Amino acid sequence: MRAQPVYPAMSLIYLLDLSAVAVCAITATLEAHRRELDMFGVAVIAVIAGIGGGTVRDILLGRLPVYWVHDPIYVVVGIAAAICTFYLGRKLSLPKNFFLLPDAIGLALFTVIGTSIAMSLQVHWFIAALMGVITGVFGGVIRDILCNEVPLIFRTDIYATASLIGALLFIALDSLGMAHNAAMIIAMIVTVLIRLAAIRWHIHLPRLRAHE
Amino acid sequence: MRAQPVYPAMSLIYLLDLSAVAVCAITATLEAHRRELDMFGVAVIAVIAGIGGGTVRDILLGRLPVYWVHDPIYVVVGIAAAICTFYLGRKLSLPKNFFLLPDAIGLALFTVIGTSIAMSLQVHWFIAALMGVITGVFGGVIRDILCNEVPLIFRTDIYATASLIGALLFIALDSLGMAHNAAMIIAMIVTVLIRLAAIRWHIHLPRLRAHE
Amino acid sequence: MRAQPVYPAMSLIYLLDLSAVAVCAITATLEAHRRELDMFGVAVIAVIAGIGGGTVRDILLGRLPVYWVHDPIYVVVGIAAAICTFYLGRKLSLPKNFFLLPDAIGLALFTVIGTSIAMSLQVHWFIAALMGVITGVFGGVIRDILCNEVPLIFRTDIYATASLIGALLFIALDSLGMAHNAAMIIAMIVTVLIRLAAIRWHIHLPRLRAHE
Repeated sequence: MRAQPVYPAMSLIYLLDLSAVAVCAITATLEAHRRELDMFGVAVIAVIAGIGGGTVRDILLGRLPVYWVHDPIYVVVGIAAAICTFYLGRKLSLPKNFFLLPDAIGLALFTVIGTSIAMSLQVHWFIAALMGVITGVFGGVIRDILCNEVPLIFRTDIYATASLIGALLFIALDSLGMAHNAAMIIAMIVTVLIRLAAIRWHIHLPRLRAHE
Repeated sequence: MRAQPVYPAMSLIYLLDLSAVAVCAITATLEAHRRELDMFGVAVIAVIAGIGGGTVRDILLGRLPVYWVHDPIYVVVGIAAAICTFYLGRKLSLPKNFFLLPDAIGLALFTVIGTSIAMSLQVHWFIAALMGVITGVFGGVIRDILCNEVPLIFRTDIYATASLIGALLFIALDSLGMAHNAAMIIAMIVTVLIRLAAIRWHIHLPRLRAHE
Repeated sequence: MRAQPVYPAMSLIYLLDLSAVAVCAITATLEAHRRELDMFGVAVIAVIAGIGGGTVRDILLGRLPVYWVHDPIYVVVGIAAAICTFYLGRKLSLPKNFFLLPDAIGLALFTVIGTSIAMSLQVHWFIAALMGVITGVFGGVIRDILCNEVPLIFRTDIYATASLIGALLFIALDSLGMAHNAAMIIAMIVTVLIRLAAIRWHIHLPRLRAHE
């Protein structure tokens, strides 16, 4: 309908958001190596990994059409990142943990953007935090469902928990009267640090084991 | 947006609805024992099992934001039920069929609430019945997809069929002029009885078998 | 809400659309033979295969309630096709490729209808094409997820690609000023031909292979 970017005044946020979509698409493409998929399937899964979280958030909140219908550049960035990774990924043998930091930054960014959008709709703070987490992690959940796997975030380190803590911190700082941008940056840094700490020291939540 | 409960005048229905969310969350947590999931994953799956059916109904009908955005208590009840079950579930070794009756009541309640909401939007009676079934069973469908299984309701006893019969009976009684609450209660009782009869005598619909 | 058909003036399109839903439901029922599902599960999966693509399109575009809430005949046709196939499918042993042509026509029709609906909402042409592809293929994607499989379109011949080319061609012809119906028919014919050619000569996109 409208052609203007979703965050017109926040050009840095906008660029970071597009970068986070690209990072999600790249990591999804690298993971798709495990399955025998054609280029189309890889591109679709990569794009969904990048924009799925924000799409689910928009549907649940009734912000329709979803954000990328207004601004197709999100889909284009996701497809371009997937195709480049598809062809270059085999030649460049990147170290296994090359994307851990970009991925953590993307998680942090999606979380604060999602939380911020929900807060602007005057929902309960708990729902705003939930929308931040959904924006941060649901792209990966849908990616794993499409790849026919139990979603990784249900089985692995403190991924969604980092997102939840970041969202709650952002809301707390905002309600204490801190400037929006400062609250965003602090919440993002904390989210990234928790995520990296969880990877570094293998911190995880209690697990259920079969026949325990 | 709004903070008032979705069914302000129906306090008994509201309490039963919350109880049904809790029952769904508890049974989902017990089933998640089969998978190696961390506490976060279990809580997410449990909450989705509890509120997923009503969420899908609201999206399809365009009642957005979805109902629990207005009333976060649904999500809180689901999370609380999951965490309690997670920690207590191993200590209390409940008989296997302990939750069959609560589960059947929850199915019946979700069915009549979903049907009733759709009817209030003046949709075709067939669509209203469908929305009742979707409210009743889709939480379980999404739970099973997240756990990477073919949804149980496609393979098991008369679960969704009980829901469908209950929804159609509710619509029939309502169109015959019966009081709303009386129609609800009768439809719920019939749904519960069909469900329990199906469990007791292993009644099921015709099945497809591979290479039959 | 409203009872009139979604495409009131396009009665041929409407009949073809219903036929395409039936074809999707029939092929889904035949495929469900591989799983041990009861009749209800088969009917649900068949209906979702038939109407899932248009439902996802409507949700993403904010055209709510979704189209079949206004016009339950879509669901009825899907269920009827599934039940007939369920009972007759074993007796009639149809040749394996009996449904390839109807399926290709259904894909083409869903694609141009989805593209046309999105264009009427003034979205970017790229998003319109995407909505055409989503309408064409997402019913099958959800069907495969429910059957616990990696969606076929991510692994097989040029299915979604045919849909994408058809959608782009339709948009190009329309922007060149061609009459709506003529553009629709040409785009559909090209989609069907690409799909059949891909089947006939085993054309496919580059694939990722594990450990390549």
